[in-house]
Amino acid sequence: MSSSSSNSRNENPQLRKDTVWNRWVIFSPARSKRPSDFKSKSQSNPNPTPTTTTNCPFCIGNEHQCAPEIFRVPPDNPNWNIRVIQNLYPALSRDLDNPVQEVVPSSGLVLDGFGFHDVVIETPVHSVQLTDLSRHQIGEVFVAFTNRIQQLLNRHSIKYVQVFKNHGASAGASMSHSHSQLLALPVIPPSVSARLASMKDFFDQTGKCCICEIQCEDLLIDSSTYFFSLVPFAASFPFEIWIVPRYHSAHFHELDAEKAVDLGGLLKKILRKMSLQLNDPPFNYMIHTSPLHCNESESEYSHWFIQIVPQLIGTAGFELATGCYINPVFPEDAAKVLREVNVPESE
Amino acid sequence: MSSSSSNSRNENPQLRKDTVWNRWVIFSPARSKRPSDFKSKSQSNPNPTPTTTTNCPFCIGNEHQCAPEIFRVPPDNPNWNIRVIQNLYPALSRDLDNPVQEVVPSSGLVLDGFGFHDVVIETPVHSVQLTDLSRHQIGEVFVAFTNRIQQLLNRHSIKYVQVFKNHGASAGASMSHSHSQLLALPVIPPSVSARLASMKDFFDQTGKCCICEIQCEDLLIDSSTYFFSLVPFAASFPFEIWIVPRYHSAHFHELDAEKAVDLGGLLKKILRKMSLQLNDPPFNYMIHTSPLHCNESESEYSHWFIQIVPQLIGTAGFELATGCYINPVFPEDAAKVLREVNVPESE
Repeated sequence: MSSSSSNSRNENPQLRKDTVWNRWVIFSPARSKRPSDFKSKSQSNPNPTPTTTTNCPFCIGNEHQCAPEIFRVPPDNPNWNIRVIQNLYPALSRDLDNPVQEVVPSSGLVLDGFGFHDVVIETPVHSVQLTDLSRHQIGEVFVAFTNRIQQLLNRHSIKYVQVFKNHGASAGASMSHSHSQLLALPVIPPSVSARLASMKDFFDQTGKCCICEIQCEDLLIDSSTYFFSLVPFAASFPFEIWIVPRYHSAHFHELDAEKAVDLGGLLKKILRKMSLQLNDPPFNYMIHTSPLHCNESESEYSHWFIQIVPQLIGTAGFELATGCYINPVFPEDAAKVLREVNVPESE
Repeated sequence: MSSSSSNSRNENPQLRKDTVWNRWVIFSPARSKRPSDFKSKSQSNPNPTPTTTTNCPFCIGNEHQCAPEIFRVPPDNPNWNIRVIQNLYPALSRDLDNPVQEVVPSSGLVLDGFGFHDVVIETPVHSVQLTDLSRHQIGEVFVAFTNRIQQLLNRHSIKYVQVFKNHGASAGASMSHSHSQLLALPVIPPSVSARLASMKDFFDQTGKCCICEIQCEDLLIDSSTYFFSLVPFAASFPFEIWIVPRYHSAHFHELDAEKAVDLGGLLKKILRKMSLQLNDPPFNYMIHTSPLHCNESESEYSHWFIQIVPQLIGTAGFELATGCYINPVFPEDAAKVLREVNVPESE
């Protein structure tokens, strides 16, 4: 292994924590290759696939193989672009509404597993990946997420909706047909509580939203009318990327159609850059938003964003034990690799 | 996929959180096979290996290929049983003592990457795995950990020492020769802070240590003179196992030689049971202890234990985003599978 850079700052390991997550990350360049060599060993999608397959339930024409549909885009149209359906193997059950919580003495708490676990099929065509869609089509996917979340707003037991995409088998995708997922939860998950507490601390100290205040000259990758992309100051993973609204907004589901298209364009651009520079890696993306029913003060300090994590290194006992990640690539180096590659403009 | 059990409690998903971590876990039996069928797809160690190899730096005779030795057991003996050495690719640098912390406005904190990253070679013989060692030999490995931590106690910049083992390539082991690692950190890692805060809450409410109070009739696997093994009430992972001291103790490094042998016997037993029932899975184990320099009140509510995690399922975007795990096997079912298998008694 060689050292990461000729920049002396980057020869030594360093710990960082940011104002969003408030958790230490170890930057350890001695454990890495040069940032420019940091390519995925396994491509997310190494084999060309046919346009439709008879055994893929997500392909157009195979709708009867799926769990029930929630809605489609356009509505009632057999030539759909997007379908939002129930997950056939849901993590939570939509039949346990008004969940009961019980204290188990000396052990902890138990709560009925109420929730919604939905799948968003992003295209009718098996061989089409997210980056093959136009920015308008990706914008339609984002609008489908917001519409589904709007439907869930009147379920008072639902506290938080996590939108996420697993792309590639080693990133957790069990189906190769392009899709993403929503999990609507009856609790605030632990990382969300920690993020809100950290953002609140910053707000209490400064009177400002910590994401509105992000300074990112050498961390910036690209920007669009309403959004910018960057490698975060204390990225937990090599080449982790955030897409952040330039305007203050606590809730992803308030995104409108115009901003959704703009976001679609920026997401497409960054995913294509990542694919080019890192050998089409498997990846996850996650939309970090605020609890569905948050108060006015929470809305002031909380600001939604998208986190994209290419799967380039594994995690093991140390990360499991400590919640502290070891990142072999300094954020400034990763940002440079992603900023300096050009991808052709496209619709 | 079939449902997990005839027990009606286990047909529906459930959320649980325990008093140790205070984080919600989703139990989702619909996503699993039956607990008894929950075997690893890839064995941790599928191929027999020779007794020594010329290209393994951890084998006896190849000591010159390693980073510097810290100590060996027995001392100064060419026929060593255990060697504690520096990691050739350390995550932190032992040369940055008196680390400097800097505030980066609107971004967060930066701290020099000072720390120690050591490797404990558990046997001189390439083909010997941890479970092939006697309970006395495993006890010697635990004593080597405690001796190394005792040495680090006088480094005032070191706040926490994480001991962990990665077994099998997919659990993060880059070397197949049996070894474990210590990482001595200049900060308290995020999961440790969260665990201590949760244990403190329980103590403040009840005046008791939450681990001393664990009730575990149907979660118990085995017990020995000084320890017991169980599947925790809110296990994050299928077949996650804890080994817990029966006596109150905040610091793992206070373990004495007699208790270390007892612990060695129980660890060996549970790893053999896991291997038999789950097809020799890759696994991680982690020793959860208290900060090196903790005050008297912390010592009252904090209690060390070992967490063992077989690598049976992957994690993906949902877990990355939320810190909330989806476990397809109820702890009571996993404990039964591990309790009811017999392994021959051995030295």
